[in-house]
Amino acid sequence: MLNLRRTLTKTLPFLRLTSLPQNLFLPFSTPFCTKPQVPRPEPLDQKYNRREVEDLLKRKFFLAQSFEIYGGVAGLYDFGPLGAGLKNEVEQMWRRHFVLEEDMLEVSCSTLTPEEVLRTSGHVEKFEDFMVKDVVSGQCYRADKILEDHIDKVLQKRGTKMEEEEVERLQKIRAQADSFDRNEIAEILKELKVKAPDTGNPISDPVPFNLMFSTQIGPSGSSKGYFRPETAQSIFVNFKRLLEFNNGRLPFASAQIGLGFRNEISPRAGLLRVREFTMAEIEHFCDPLNKNHHKFSLVKDKTLPLLSKERQLILEDPTTDLTVGEAVEQGIINNQTLAYFMTRTFLFFEKCGIPRSAIRFRQHLDTEMAHYASDCWDAEIETSYGWIEIVGHADRSCYDLESHSKHTNTELLGSRLLESPIEVSTTYILPDKRKLGRALKSDCKLLCDYLDSLSEEQKQIIHKQYDQAENEFEIDIGSKKITVSKDTIEIKIDKKMSMEEKFAPHVIEPSFGIGRLCHCIFEHCYHKREQDEARKYFKFPITIAPIKVSILPLISNCEEHNTFVLKLKSDLNSLGISSKIDESSQTIGRRYSRADECGIPFAITIDNETVIESVVTLREIQSTSQVSIPISKVVDTVKDLCEGRLSWENIIDTYPSFRND
Amino acid sequence: MLNLRRTLTKTLPFLRLTSLPQNLFLPFSTPFCTKPQVPRPEPLDQKYNRREVEDLLKRKFFLAQSFEIYGGVAGLYDFGPLGAGLKNEVEQMWRRHFVLEEDMLEVSCSTLTPEEVLRTSGHVEKFEDFMVKDVVSGQCYRADKILEDHIDKVLQKRGTKMEEEEVERLQKIRAQADSFDRNEIAEILKELKVKAPDTGNPISDPVPFNLMFSTQIGPSGSSKGYFRPETAQSIFVNFKRLLEFNNGRLPFASAQIGLGFRNEISPRAGLLRVREFTMAEIEHFCDPLNKNHHKFSLVKDKTLPLLSKERQLILEDPTTDLTVGEAVEQGIINNQTLAYFMTRTFLFFEKCGIPRSAIRFRQHLDTEMAHYASDCWDAEIETSYGWIEIVGHADRSCYDLESHSKHTNTELLGSRLLESPIEVSTTYILPDKRKLGRALKSDCKLLCDYLDSLSEEQKQIIHKQYDQAENEFEIDIGSKKITVSKDTIEIKIDKKMSMEEKFAPHVIEPSFGIGRLCHCIFEHCYHKREQDEARKYFKFPITIAPIKVSILPLISNCEEHNTFVLKLKSDLNSLGISSKIDESSQTIGRRYSRADECGIPFAITIDNETVIESVVTLREIQSTSQVSIPISKVVDTVKDLCEGRLSWENIIDTYPSFRND
Repeated sequence: MLNLRRTLTKTLPFLRLTSLPQNLFLPFSTPFCTKPQVPRPEPLDQKYNRREVEDLLKRKFFLAQSFEIYGGVAGLYDFGPLGAGLKNEVEQMWRRHFVLEEDMLEVSCSTLTPEEVLRTSGHVEKFEDFMVKDVVSGQCYRADKILEDHIDKVLQKRGTKMEEEEVERLQKIRAQADSFDRNEIAEILKELKVKAPDTGNPISDPVPFNLMFSTQIGPSGSSKGYFRPETAQSIFVNFKRLLEFNNGRLPFASAQIGLGFRNEISPRAGLLRVREFTMAEIEHFCDPLNKNHHKFSLVKDKTLPLLSKERQLILEDPTTDLTVGEAVEQGIINNQTLAYFMTRTFLFFEKCGIPRSAIRFRQHLDTEMAHYASDCWDAEIETSYGWIEIVGHADRSCYDLESHSKHTNTELLGSRLLESPIEVSTTYILPDKRKLGRALKSDCKLLCDYLDSLSEEQKQIIHKQYDQAENEFEIDIGSKKITVSKDTIEIKIDKKMSMEEKFAPHVIEPSFGIGRLCHCIFEHCYHKREQDEARKYFKFPITIAPIKVSILPLISNCEEHNTFVLKLKSDLNSLGISSKIDESSQTIGRRYSRADECGIPFAITIDNETVIESVVTLREIQSTSQVSIPISKVVDTVKDLCEGRLSWENIIDTYPSFRND
Repeated sequence: MLNLRRTLTKTLPFLRLTSLPQNLFLPFSTPFCTKPQVPRPEPLDQKYNRREVEDLLKRKFFLAQSFEIYGGVAGLYDFGPLGAGLKNEVEQMWRRHFVLEEDMLEVSCSTLTPEEVLRTSGHVEKFEDFMVKDVVSGQCYRADKILEDHIDKVLQKRGTKMEEEEVERLQKIRAQADSFDRNEIAEILKELKVKAPDTGNPISDPVPFNLMFSTQIGPSGSSKGYFRPETAQSIFVNFKRLLEFNNGRLPFASAQIGLGFRNEISPRAGLLRVREFTMAEIEHFCDPLNKNHHKFSLVKDKTLPLLSKERQLILEDPTTDLTVGEAVEQGIINNQTLAYFMTRTFLFFEKCGIPRSAIRFRQHLDTEMAHYASDCWDAEIETSYGWIEIVGHADRSCYDLESHSKHTNTELLGSRLLESPIEVSTTYILPDKRKLGRALKSDCKLLCDYLDSLSEEQKQIIHKQYDQAENEFEIDIGSKKITVSKDTIEIKIDKKMSMEEKFAPHVIEPSFGIGRLCHCIFEHCYHKREQDEARKYFKFPITIAPIKVSILPLISNCEEHNTFVLKLKSDLNSLGISSKIDESSQTIGRRYSRADECGIPFAITIDNETVIESVVTLREIQSTSQVSIPISKVVDTVKDLCEGRLSWENIIDTYPSFRND
């Protein structure tokens, strides 16, 4: 989703800020919340144990800052074996949940993008943040962030002594920090005497900074390109081929999982604001006159936590639970397709282990949406940084397809079948090439090629000019204007009845930040045992756990045990189940807790029973419950557990429990 | 694999070129073969139906040039639904074949890389091609390619009339085109009077052109970065964390599937030389004294088609079939680990549907390898462009880890357990901070920090300087040199016996080009029916077929059939099997052949039998053989077929065959 900051309005309704959702004005590229304005029972970073989660992630190499031994680069992260494993599983689950189950056309397109494409989409001109510099050190800051931080500091320092009115004014400025225009933010920074936070030096006036990474394509130095800031544009430019692939039928959706890049001025907060990230975007193309969804009946009774634009103006926690059917009926959600995808997103979050209480759908205010969008809902998850947008659901109308169509002279239209025929006229512009050649010389070919490339709509415009002209008129072919005498051109209209009508499809777009979602999964799946504060662990849903099974020979370096270990490992491999052998000489308890920290759900322990009676211990690590199970059954059982065909309760009911620790 | 062209030798043994493997001198980044020097029974582009394959790929949107409606960008390709589906399956199969079955540590790291890292690896200085410009139009060409094309043209035109000697000389120059240095290639271009191929204009002298895409990280303009040309470096810089994750044990392998970027001067030949590509790289870290592989016994009797460096000098087809065990024993392949991976690659190619006859392993000549490499084998596949390198298998020795270690002052070592203890000395450099502070002022802290960061090896060097100095000596701390008086520093040596010895691990690297492999799969899986030339199809191995099942209701728009269609679709989805409903009003034959073109292996047809007797037709599309099967069995049967638990023969033996077309 392209959330151009400059498309936000400059003036906002005067809201009581205590009632504002925390990141009201922060689109996808700026996930940050204000620090809580209202005192809370427990600060969020403590509620979600931010520090501890970060420590564990780093210690077990789920994640690390990229190029750490070179000092690291801000906003770039490497996923280690466990992090990459989890991310892969999330992507595979996404593919299954959306692409497979919803019959989407998945594509995989270039990240490198020529300037012309991103100029048409609006990114070259408008995809920017305001930046200020420390005039002495040259250090750069994001103007809105420095303003927010400044106000936070001021409010914290003089909180109780300050006039109520002044506090409110500052809070209001803070909430709008992201939506001021260049002059406005310059004035406010001056008025509030904001200095560079690290040095206290004066700062420069704000200047716009484009957030795309630019480069040169090819050796000539004349072909500027960017690394894409979103995957969406590459789907739009392939619309024609996709429609053809779908046998010309609408609606259909195309999807893409891939990298996006944003040259953030000052990245922070781990995976939440980074310079390189994995996105998963869906572009659903449909008839603007019919945004119903054929599977809507399957979800209409599902209740979603909605925070509509109206309710955002009400005090206290304004989220309401409504069924999706009601929300569409009451016009709260614009259409069935948007509502259908929101529900699918909700179900996906649940599969990722995010509790319902930490999910909400926040509608964009009219003032917050891009001018072309007709409705927009962010799926937000509560984290230690506040409510963060993880998925944007936007009705982008026909904006993107029309822009690319116009710029490239390519017809990007769908068609609908009609109940009764309509008259369709086709305009033919027929140059008299002999006459035209004599009159225009080398421009003749240029003009003819141009006329060939026109859409029906453009031909009708020329027809109008033709009719209005007396003898001659001007045609703008892009590179130049050519004066054409009326007698060198003939225009014919062919009218016929048709059962088909063409239109520019609308686009409904769910756009996922996969890295952000991983961050939420880490925070929500982190736990610690009450009886033992030091024993921290991740309890991931089995489907996304990076490793499913820990294989533990009770005695290490025992040849007899080892045979079973290797056989087990290879049987699990052949079913595609990831496992890790821990044959260290540590105690079994220490090895369980090591697996626990990695979020491994099951352990299979091999002991003397295995050798004598072909029985192993299967343990659900996080609950510490365990059973004895024949080695011949254990692999298929684990497979069924991983794929949700069996629950742990089924296992307990079927096999004798085993206790020895 | 970093194949720095400048690391190739400048002079090559004088070979009879007719005996040369076609792409002898073309490393991974330059896959191009010479046009065949020896007359062949059938030109390769016809043998592999290059034109037809390309047409079908484009028509069915397996692939398209990126930004086509903007005129396209050379060297960039988008994968449409079928192409992306196949590529995903190949990646998943790779993950299972290597990461899962070989217990590798998969990571996913940033593509954006700071300059310092790629300077250390050698890419900033040496990852370049020579470029010439058309002095009039400014069009850029690769010097070696323009030279090759020129010689081809000359030989073609005057082939029979030319002196035998001159022909041989030109062929020799052509074969070395890629390995000349700047002066050499400049001279040859001049001598042969090579002109710009598109215009005939004079060309400039060759200049080196770095093949990396550069950009700026962050807003300051002072932090240059590149988009990585290979994924390997990000594994090397994470070595320390990976070793820790593996509990300090060697050997282990880390793997990564991800994007790489090379700003090719003149990309060509579809997916074979592109500017953005997916790589899958493995870095296997091991003890230089023990390159055995614990699973070697499993592969040692496997026969591989080997083209050793010695045999490349022999006339005719010099490939020999040797067992892997023999090859290692005879010293043809340097070590077990390299041989083990080559065998795994061979098995992977077979799973991808590449016939044995189109696979060979070509060893790099000593003159062709990077100076630090001890052995290198390319897995090549025959394509319409000749033999192309798809996977490089290189023993990179300890070059990379040592470079990064040295540059960052980070210890990147493994350790081995010893049979008997050795004496290990640890050097302690103990500054007298009081004296040193008085002598050096603010430099004192700099010096102390530097001394803290040193490795044992570096400390020993300082110890030596200390011993040799009379009163004072100089320490180079990087940013400056500091003169230190001997009496401000004390050096102590601690000696103890240890059962452990440290060493710089060696790296054995298999490096896959996934896009290139896809190209080979397309060419080798393309077929046409003899009885019907127009009926072209892909027969992919089931595992990598982008869509597994075509669901065909015999009568379209029939409510009764439709219920079965949707139930079937949803049952397939729930098992993760991709399918496509074709409910068009086309004849069933036309719909089969449509599925055929997409490489869909199975079709399930729903007809009146289905409604009356709950039976469907299951067809193996490419063989046109089909059976009647109860609808209750069909989904599990297809699952078993897809996962290789059942073969089509099993199906024919179990169910009655069905014939009606």
